[in-house]
Amino acid sequence: MVDLESLFKLSYGMCVVSSKKKDSINGCIVNTVFQIVPEPPMVAASINRNCLTHDYITESKVFAVSVLSQQAPMSFIRRFGFRSGGDFDKFRKVNYKLGQTGAPILLDNTVAFLEAQVTESVDVVTHTLFIANIVACQMLNESAEPMTYAYYRDIKQGKTPKTAATYINLEKNRKKE
Amino acid sequence: MVDLESLFKLSYGMCVVSSKKKDSINGCIVNTVFQIVPEPPMVAASINRNCLTHDYITESKVFAVSVLSQQAPMSFIRRFGFRSGGDFDKFRKVNYKLGQTGAPILLDNTVAFLEAQVTESVDVVTHTLFIANIVACQMLNESAEPMTYAYYRDIKQGKTPKTAATYINLEKNRKKE
Repeated sequence: MVDLESLFKLSYGMCVVSSKKKDSINGCIVNTVFQIVPEPPMVAASINRNCLTHDYITESKVFAVSVLSQQAPMSFIRRFGFRSGGDFDKFRKVNYKLGQTGAPILLDNTVAFLEAQVTESVDVVTHTLFIANIVACQMLNESAEPMTYAYYRDIKQGKTPKTAATYINLEKNRKKE
Repeated sequence: MVDLESLFKLSYGMCVVSSKKKDSINGCIVNTVFQIVPEPPMVAASINRNCLTHDYITESKVFAVSVLSQQAPMSFIRRFGFRSGGDFDKFRKVNYKLGQTGAPILLDNTVAFLEAQVTESVDVVTHTLFIANIVACQMLNESAEPMTYAYYRDIKQGKTPKTAATYINLEKNRKKE
């Protein structure tokens, strides 16, 4: 049996993954960032090849991850998750700083951040799994609760864009049952 | 700055990843399983090369993921997370079934499960990142809440074994600050 809705029971956190390309910066909402090795600390992030941030990471080999807090408003999530940076400056009028890698780090609605240097890229169908060394990581607001994907979906009633690694076509799923 | 404690703000879910090798079965607690591609649905799991389950997956190329519920008792977690299957049958007197891949699926304390067929293995320092097609997935107890890693650490006061991808040596971290 393949009941894709059961996959929603895997837990994730909501982040903005951001990068740079020459003088440009961009970022997108990603819920598939996780530590894969403790020492040296390394992360993996799965990002759709159609996302502009994907191109930026491929070119610059660096990215930052800003871990979103539960307080992040839906307008903030829509800004980073449902618009393309191709025709819109997502960081305009947003409070951020450039990290040591040059990738932008969000300063509002953020619990913690990390910066990473890509060591390997694995092509997986529509996505690339970027494997990277963590070169910096820091708490920004220790008392804030990270926004989990379940919180985003259940409490904030958030949707999942088709580019997400965890997008599930429920219409198709119903047909499979 | 590298403040490793900030990495605890990434969100994960607690699972038992299990596999088989000939007539033997084994499983271990893993918090680094995540969907990386929506269609066809694929997952990645980072597992320490010292774990017996790692050998089983390497040999059989299949694994199951049982998503633990908040109700899973600490004795259950210790059984799968802090003992080696080398000298102990972790599934003895535990309620489970063999899935279509032959990997065991836990039936108690489980919200949902998936079974996966490995397509690629990526060596990353001490761990292997197994990339796999989801061949089955199903809800077992829809009303149960999945146990997040934060819930395990903060509410259940759970520890992290040194083999975990998210193990952080706090003694060393303090020295770095």
